[in-house]
Amino acid sequence: MAATASARHSLAAVRAAVDAHLDDYFAGKARAAADDGMPPEVIDVLRGFVLGGGKRLRPLLCACGWYAAGGTGDTGEVVTVGAALEMFHAFALVHDDVMDRSATRRGRATVHETYAGRFRHGRTPGAAERLGTGAAILTGDLALAWSDEILHSAGLDGSRLTALLAVTDAMRTELMYGQYLDLCATGRFGSELGSAFRILRYKTAKYTFERPLHIGAILAGGDAHVLQRLTAYALPLGEAFQLRDDLLGVFGTPGTTGKPCLDDLRDGKHSVLVALALRHCDPAQREALHRLVGHPALDESGAGEIRAILVATGARARVERMIRARRSRARRALADSGLPAPAADALHRIARAATVRSS
Amino acid sequence: MAATASARHSLAAVRAAVDAHLDDYFAGKARAAADDGMPPEVIDVLRGFVLGGGKRLRPLLCACGWYAAGGTGDTGEVVTVGAALEMFHAFALVHDDVMDRSATRRGRATVHETYAGRFRHGRTPGAAERLGTGAAILTGDLALAWSDEILHSAGLDGSRLTALLAVTDAMRTELMYGQYLDLCATGRFGSELGSAFRILRYKTAKYTFERPLHIGAILAGGDAHVLQRLTAYALPLGEAFQLRDDLLGVFGTPGTTGKPCLDDLRDGKHSVLVALALRHCDPAQREALHRLVGHPALDESGAGEIRAILVATGARARVERMIRARRSRARRALADSGLPAPAADALHRIARAATVRSS
Repeated sequence: MAATASARHSLAAVRAAVDAHLDDYFAGKARAAADDGMPPEVIDVLRGFVLGGGKRLRPLLCACGWYAAGGTGDTGEVVTVGAALEMFHAFALVHDDVMDRSATRRGRATVHETYAGRFRHGRTPGAAERLGTGAAILTGDLALAWSDEILHSAGLDGSRLTALLAVTDAMRTELMYGQYLDLCATGRFGSELGSAFRILRYKTAKYTFERPLHIGAILAGGDAHVLQRLTAYALPLGEAFQLRDDLLGVFGTPGTTGKPCLDDLRDGKHSVLVALALRHCDPAQREALHRLVGHPALDESGAGEIRAILVATGARARVERMIRARRSRARRALADSGLPAPAADALHRIARAATVRSS
Repeated sequence: MAATASARHSLAAVRAAVDAHLDDYFAGKARAAADDGMPPEVIDVLRGFVLGGGKRLRPLLCACGWYAAGGTGDTGEVVTVGAALEMFHAFALVHDDVMDRSATRRGRATVHETYAGRFRHGRTPGAAERLGTGAAILTGDLALAWSDEILHSAGLDGSRLTALLAVTDAMRTELMYGQYLDLCATGRFGSELGSAFRILRYKTAKYTFERPLHIGAILAGGDAHVLQRLTAYALPLGEAFQLRDDLLGVFGTPGTTGKPCLDDLRDGKHSVLVALALRHCDPAQREALHRLVGHPALDESGAGEIRAILVATGARARVERMIRARRSRARRALADSGLPAPAADALHRIARAATVRSS
């Protein structure tokens, strides 16, 4: 129990330490940019975005993976690599918001909107928007490059560095493929469940849960056996997390989620939630779903109609059951895993937090 | 002389070997994607773009850097790292074309246009264009991630890998800053030369010339002294290369450059060429430049008027002199460098090819 309490304390500390590491990194970049006569605003904007919010879920999972593989003592490497994961996530979100043309994220203006506001002076709104998009693409690219730079600064020796880079390389390809599948399905939602699950497995379950756990385990010298146990926990839990996200995107409160409530429905993405509704609806409901979901000018009344159908067809309840089933599977995987108590305890708490949440 | 001839032969071989390496890499990715049920078209599109054209200038310079630092024998590592540089360049071009909304590159449709064409079926042109842009952003991201993966596969040991990663990390930050400066100057051209030179130093001289040479030198274990000598050659030559590019963008033949001829003028970017014209023009010419440069609907007659002013003010001739002066400086740096004959010989030839060209 003492080890568990200490690990719980360390996990809370990891969050603060990751933010402090990122803050230091940005300060260093600001000094270097000033020395080279480079514009400070890119660093300002990215720093504001990275440190302005976020759950730090990936660094926490990275730390859990480290404890799971027997990591003890100094968490310096875990914090550095966690900071790299958070910077990578900033890259992914900035580009995602450009692709989705989202106006807000974490309750604030998205990065491309922030730039567009800065570029507006003396330009047409169209020109400012175009430059804002370009600047956000570059800022995302920079976040990806800086994520690497932070990773490389962790001071890992040859074989651990090589093992770590292999996993981060795989993680990136998986995320991009997931994002691409998601993009292609925009406006092409349907009743097919397999493809909807493939998107959320690649976009979320592997990227947000499995790979950060693997990365932490590799830092502690974990072998293939530990990685496999972490996968057995991570994939069902990651699916449950994304299913919860999908429910919050439709039924959540924008003030709590930080995202406008209608974006998910307006985008008409292929989700498990809508696929289930299409599998259990009558012809009138089907007509309404095809008329409303993916409509760029969908209003609150149309969204209300969709929500009623998602409830009436039992799609919402089915997704809730899927979340519970996957959380149970993740917990059973943990119980069977023989992982050290501090890691198992933390992962149990994360399983709850990831699936019972309002933001 | 035998060594020089052999190096010349090796440099020609590097180009073919880099293409073969990239071809193999894409084939492996296609097999892996098929196994995972992932969409093949991302790989098709990126492969077509990477292998469909390009001068392979960065891999060649990487090989020159390797010879310069005393590299001999097996060029396997140089070829792998050269392939990574070329994949990185694909990333940079794909995102650059999205930001500039360019329709063609290397005489073909740009990546976002290619996707938009594929997405057009059953969608509005606006929706297809939006998805095309998103897919191109993701494809660029993937190219960046894959560039890393290729780099990591070169089998470098700890200290050389660490040294290499430090330079590639610096290269990326420099390029992004250069691109950002360039973006911010869009539609904001003026007579200020210092900022125009800073843009081309970061966007081109460091990224295209200095860093590939450094990377090759590091592969051969080159020290700070060799890197410094390569910098003395690379920065003036890289500036000359970009100045030639600017002239070709305005006075070149689209059939030869592969780029539409009016894009540079329509974008109204802050360039040395236009800055020089603004410094040496009369009031009527100044009015015409401000009216025409950066006009999104600029036509061939307006472009003709701009060209006449660039000639009449002596801006074109001044840029030609700047190119010659920088090439001479690069050559003197080579003459003083004491670099091995094969490297110096190849770098002399590159100095000519980079500054006297039509595409």
